[in-house]
Amino acid sequence: MQVKEAAAAARQAAYALAQLTDEQRNAALRGMAEALQRHAPGIFAANEQDMRKAEEEKLAFPLLKRLKFDESKLSDVCAGLSSLAALPDPLGKITLKRELSPGLDLYRVSCPIGVIGVVFESRPDALVQIASLCVKSGNAVLLKGGREALGTNRALMEALLEGTKGILPDGWGALMETREDVNSMLAEDRSIDLIIPRGSNAFVRYIMDHTNIPVMGHADGICHTYVDASADVEMAVRVAVDAKTQALAVCNAMETMLVHRDIAEKFLPVCFAALREKGVEIRGDERVRRIADCAPATEKDWETEYLDAILSVKIVDSEEEAVNHINRYGSHHTDAIIASDREAQEKFLMGVDSAGVYVNCSTRFADGYRYGFGAEVGISTGKLHARGPVGLEGLCTYKYQLLGSGQTVEDTVTGRIAYTHRDL
Amino acid sequence: MQVKEAAAAARQAAYALAQLTDEQRNAALRGMAEALQRHAPGIFAANEQDMRKAEEEKLAFPLLKRLKFDESKLSDVCAGLSSLAALPDPLGKITLKRELSPGLDLYRVSCPIGVIGVVFESRPDALVQIASLCVKSGNAVLLKGGREALGTNRALMEALLEGTKGILPDGWGALMETREDVNSMLAEDRSIDLIIPRGSNAFVRYIMDHTNIPVMGHADGICHTYVDASADVEMAVRVAVDAKTQALAVCNAMETMLVHRDIAEKFLPVCFAALREKGVEIRGDERVRRIADCAPATEKDWETEYLDAILSVKIVDSEEEAVNHINRYGSHHTDAIIASDREAQEKFLMGVDSAGVYVNCSTRFADGYRYGFGAEVGISTGKLHARGPVGLEGLCTYKYQLLGSGQTVEDTVTGRIAYTHRDL
Repeated sequence: MQVKEAAAAARQAAYALAQLTDEQRNAALRGMAEALQRHAPGIFAANEQDMRKAEEEKLAFPLLKRLKFDESKLSDVCAGLSSLAALPDPLGKITLKRELSPGLDLYRVSCPIGVIGVVFESRPDALVQIASLCVKSGNAVLLKGGREALGTNRALMEALLEGTKGILPDGWGALMETREDVNSMLAEDRSIDLIIPRGSNAFVRYIMDHTNIPVMGHADGICHTYVDASADVEMAVRVAVDAKTQALAVCNAMETMLVHRDIAEKFLPVCFAALREKGVEIRGDERVRRIADCAPATEKDWETEYLDAILSVKIVDSEEEAVNHINRYGSHHTDAIIASDREAQEKFLMGVDSAGVYVNCSTRFADGYRYGFGAEVGISTGKLHARGPVGLEGLCTYKYQLLGSGQTVEDTVTGRIAYTHRDL
Repeated sequence: MQVKEAAAAARQAAYALAQLTDEQRNAALRGMAEALQRHAPGIFAANEQDMRKAEEEKLAFPLLKRLKFDESKLSDVCAGLSSLAALPDPLGKITLKRELSPGLDLYRVSCPIGVIGVVFESRPDALVQIASLCVKSGNAVLLKGGREALGTNRALMEALLEGTKGILPDGWGALMETREDVNSMLAEDRSIDLIIPRGSNAFVRYIMDHTNIPVMGHADGICHTYVDASADVEMAVRVAVDAKTQALAVCNAMETMLVHRDIAEKFLPVCFAALREKGVEIRGDERVRRIADCAPATEKDWETEYLDAILSVKIVDSEEEAVNHINRYGSHHTDAIIASDREAQEKFLMGVDSAGVYVNCSTRFADGYRYGFGAEVGISTGKLHARGPVGLEGLCTYKYQLLGSGQTVEDTVTGRIAYTHRDL
């Protein structure tokens, strides 16, 4: 497949997609589900081949588990398509309605972004999820999945294209297959409006550095939990253990814990015991090590995303020091305070410059499904457009529609018509 | 001034600014106005010197006019500050409020972006307007104005800093003075969140190509008016003349007019006569020239922003051809249709991929003041974040605040707590 041609076709398809009704887009989602069911045997066979190859290549067990696409995954995916079809239309929403002058009305109306390029990891079910989110929001999509899932992805994409034939414009979706395809895609800034990369830090950074196309996503997820002097110790331990251990290789897991000096002696020994029970290796600064035994933490630890059963811990003299540490070393993803003091909570919420700022709960909640967005295409640590978990809304932009009856700006200068700026 | 230090200071100031109340930010705007009044003689003297130098260097008359900062400009600027202070607080607005699970509530709350870098043209009053919009929205700002206004800008900036001393954190605003300063700024992607360039196409493109910082703005403004077969000829002429001639060197002026073949013979001669009365040079494609005399237009004309009294004109066989031409050659800024047919209007509104899509009015309305935004920091032709004229809202982002009482994700897995996803 030639990426240039696919991107140009997607650009044309996007203009047609923007003009489909919600009913047509939902019919496409149902068509996808039906085709997946129809092609299930072929998809499973392709997946078994991918699995066999991955086993031969000794892929790690968690990756193998993610690669599997069986009857139960298919039924999850089809259930997802049907609940997506049931969601309200994200397009055509009017978010501003204003009379500029009598007979001259301004509307701000949500519309698709256009062409989205998504690079995602090994899970083949992500292909269906991302493609369907793009279609529901009226966008064309170029997809690149993990190398090890290529056979499964091909079978899935074929089914999606067949199931939407005659409903969606040709070119609405295409699968890219190689790393070179991704590089070609990064140059298509006239055809592609947005790139969403999901993968390793290094890979996301590479993409951000090698394209003029806007990129939405996150490289690091260095999340913090700050245990304030006013924290409930039992709650702090419970939440910290969850934030660190509920899953390890995920972007919303805690990597550094900051502890107020006034609670450290009471809190650290209990918390370390609970963490070690879960197999966590602890690295502390000098003051931590005076209270509880652990390996030494260096400056480098504060800026490391372990994605593993390792936690760095630092004692701070004040909440301000904690907030400054988070803003300096964090990745503006998700950070939590454990505190019973209202003022301390408020200060944290205002002061920490992250997509998610949490009080008395685990950073692991940062996720589109948990936020009730239905699904997410990714999590953004940028500050423009969508921030945090990105669902349907983040795949939309808006346009200003101005409906008149012959008005000119000269008329406003000569005073023949006047601005009223009255919200309707 | 060292840009690196100014950017780092702005970064720190931004964290403090985000925690000020609306009252404090409004007090700063009032402090600005008072200081400008106090320093008026010094500001006027600096401006007279800039003007003298510009005259010696034979700056074009329209630029000289824009450079002037006198009693009347000062009073406009101070009136602007006071109406900005009267606008509602753009920060702390809750745009989503959802119970994820009993006692675990999610809020999406508007907050400042952080540090904004703005490069603007010769008008010194723009400095006050941009700085005040940034302060009202809680952002720190680095400003770079036109070289010819340097003395005036220095005097204005000094007054703003003095008038906000003790109200805003030190470092909230700084003036950059040279082109090299701008280049240094483009490298400060750890300190600066957003660059807004206002200036020539080439300059904006240069900035977009030379930084990893997100850029919001527009390079070209190639705006179209499409005269449909169903257009009222008198209205079409009136609106076309306004779109082309009400101002020439502006991004929202019409550069290309597309005319449906069925109305061309009736419309073109009248319209060309009216345009020529205003001194417009017309370049038409072959079919246009068969109907009305004019210079020939080439492919190059369709992609040219004249910013001058020149108009290219093309006859199209269908509305679809017009929409495709606009999406291909336009700059996604603002495009209008003149039509009485409802279906044709609707098709244009849906099909044209621009920040502004207008029916029966002049493209010249694309402007923050005319939209009732109070003022604008720029106009964006990008599709992410803010699109079209960008006012206070476009200078804000949001964060997700999650307020709990010890909830863990493990609790949701074991079923001890359940998701309710109930909007509050």
